[in-house]
Amino acid sequence: MTMDSRPLFGKVALLGIGLIGSSMAHAMRRAGLAAHIAGYARSPETLEKANSIGFADGLHDAPEMAVREADFVVLATPIGAFGELAKEIAPHLKPGAIVSDVGSVKSAVIRDVSPHIPAGVHFVPAHPIAGTEQSGPEAGFPELFDGRWCVLTPTPETNAQAVETVKTFWRRCGSEVEIMDAKHHDLVLGITSHLPHLIAYNIVGTAADLEQVTQSEVIKFSAGGFRDFTRIAASDPTMWRDVFLNNREAVLEVLGRFTEDLTALQRAIRWGDGEALFNLFTRTRAIRRSIIEAGQDTPAPNFGRLRTRKP
Amino acid sequence: MTMDSRPLFGKVALLGIGLIGSSMAHAMRRAGLAAHIAGYARSPETLEKANSIGFADGLHDAPEMAVREADFVVLATPIGAFGELAKEIAPHLKPGAIVSDVGSVKSAVIRDVSPHIPAGVHFVPAHPIAGTEQSGPEAGFPELFDGRWCVLTPTPETNAQAVETVKTFWRRCGSEVEIMDAKHHDLVLGITSHLPHLIAYNIVGTAADLEQVTQSEVIKFSAGGFRDFTRIAASDPTMWRDVFLNNREAVLEVLGRFTEDLTALQRAIRWGDGEALFNLFTRTRAIRRSIIEAGQDTPAPNFGRLRTRKP
Repeated sequence: MTMDSRPLFGKVALLGIGLIGSSMAHAMRRAGLAAHIAGYARSPETLEKANSIGFADGLHDAPEMAVREADFVVLATPIGAFGELAKEIAPHLKPGAIVSDVGSVKSAVIRDVSPHIPAGVHFVPAHPIAGTEQSGPEAGFPELFDGRWCVLTPTPETNAQAVETVKTFWRRCGSEVEIMDAKHHDLVLGITSHLPHLIAYNIVGTAADLEQVTQSEVIKFSAGGFRDFTRIAASDPTMWRDVFLNNREAVLEVLGRFTEDLTALQRAIRWGDGEALFNLFTRTRAIRRSIIEAGQDTPAPNFGRLRTRKP
Repeated sequence: MTMDSRPLFGKVALLGIGLIGSSMAHAMRRAGLAAHIAGYARSPETLEKANSIGFADGLHDAPEMAVREADFVVLATPIGAFGELAKEIAPHLKPGAIVSDVGSVKSAVIRDVSPHIPAGVHFVPAHPIAGTEQSGPEAGFPELFDGRWCVLTPTPETNAQAVETVKTFWRRCGSEVEIMDAKHHDLVLGITSHLPHLIAYNIVGTAADLEQVTQSEVIKFSAGGFRDFTRIAASDPTMWRDVFLNNREAVLEVLGRFTEDLTALQRAIRWGDGEALFNLFTRTRAIRRSIIEAGQDTPAPNFGRLRTRKP
C-alpha cells in the first residue's frame, strides 16, 4: 500500500452499495481516495440503511444522478444488471471518466458493458477477490480488501493510463493487483470460487433433502465438517445466480473435471482402495500450507473459531 | 456441565494421543475426571512430544501396559487399528472396566471391537463430534469438546450403568450427549462429516491437477471460496482413509444423492435456468442461520478471520 494520501478522484459513483460497494466506500474514506462518494441503490430500504451508516456523501435512487460529473464509476450490483445499467448511465458519463466494475465474471461483463461505453470514456474491467457470506450495505467494512487480490482484465483496446489509475485505486484500498486475460480469469475463478460455491450450495441442499436424516440432526452434528460449507452457501443468491448464468462454459468445464475425479474416488471407496485414498489425502495438505504461507488464510485451527458454544 | 469435581475414574488409559486423545487428557485434567491418565502411542516421537507437553501421568509404548488397572480405556487411534488393538489389550483389561472409543464410524467399530471384549468388561461405543484440521499430541486443547455433541451408540446388550458413566464423562468434558443407533449414526455422519471431507479432498485435488490453471493462481485467488475447503482437506490422511474404508455403504449412499443433485444443478446451468439456481441458493441460507442459532458455528463473517494478510 502506498503512503500517498491525495484524493485520486474528485467524484466516485458506486452503482450498488451492498457488501462490496459499501466496503469500497469505507476503504476509500480510509485512504482519502475521493473528494465525493456517491452511492446508487434501487431499493429505498438499502438507501435508508446506507444513509444511517453514512459511508457516502450523496445517495441516489437513479443511477444517472449518481454518475453525473463522476471521474470514476463502479458497477457493483449483481452482474446480470450490468448491461441495462451501462446503457442507462451512458449518456450521462463525463468525458474522460473511467468506468469499472467488481463482477465475478469478466468475459460476460465485457460483452455486456463495452458496447454501451461512449467514446472518450474508459472501461477497465476489475474483480476484487474478497467477500464474506453477508450482504447489504451494513455488511461492508474498510479492511475487506486488505491483502486480497484484485484482478484487472483490460482488453488490448483498453486505455493504458486508465488501467494504471484503477491499479493505483485498488492498491490504495489495500489490495494487490494482477492483470489477466478475461477468459483466463473466468477459468481461474471457476475453480477457485465458482465451483466451491456450487459444491457448497449443492451439499447443503442434499443434506436438507435427505429423508432419513432430520434437519435437527444435520444442524446439531454440523461441526463434523458440514458447517464450513454452510457459510459459503449463505452467500447472496442473486449474485451467485448471475455468476453461474454468466460463466457457464468455464463452470461446466471445471465441474466436469470435479465429477470425473469424484467418480474415481467413489470407485476407490467401493473397492476399498486405501492407498488411492491415502495418496490424495496426503497431497491436499500441501496446498493448505501454501495458502497460509501466502497470507490468504489464517493458520489458526478451525479458522480460529474455537469457542462457538451457546452463551 | 455438572459442577461435580470428584474423579470419575481412578485410572484412564488413552490408546492414541493425537488431537482427540490429547484434548481428552486436557479436558479430564480441567474437570478433575481421573486420578491417573495413562497414554499409549506407537511412535517414540509422539511419546516424546506428549511427554514434553505433560498432559499424561504415564506414557507407554505398549498398549497392554497402559490399560493395566485402568477403569476407563479409550481407543483413540485411527479406526483401522481398533480390531488389533482390542485383541491385544483384551487379556489385560481389569474386570468391570469400561472400554470406549472416539471413532468416526460406529457399525464397523462395533463389528471389530466387540468380539474381543471379555465378559465383565463393558464396551460403550462413542463419537465426540469435534476436531480441527490439525493432528498430533501438540494439537490438543481442553476446550475442544465444549458445546459440541458426543454420540453414544450402545447396542441392546450394552450395560446401562456403563452408558451412564460414559455420558457423565463426556458431559464433564464439556460435551452434550446423544444416544443413537450405530447404523443411523453412520448415515448422519456420512452427510454431516464424511461427505463434506470427501468433497473437500476431491476439489482440492481437482484444482491441483487442472493444467490450464497454475498452482500459484489457485493459491493467490483462494479467498474466493476455495481456501475454506483446503482446511478440511488438511485433515489427517490415515484417519480419513480408515473412515471411508469403514463407512463405505453410508458414504456411497449420500454420495449418490449428492451427485444426483449436482447433475440437476449442472443441467440448470447448461440451460440457463436462473430460477432453479436462485431457489436453491435461497433455501440454503436458512440452514446456516439455524446452525449459528444452535451454537454450532460463529456468526462472525468469514468465521471471524478478517485479517489474514501477511505480517
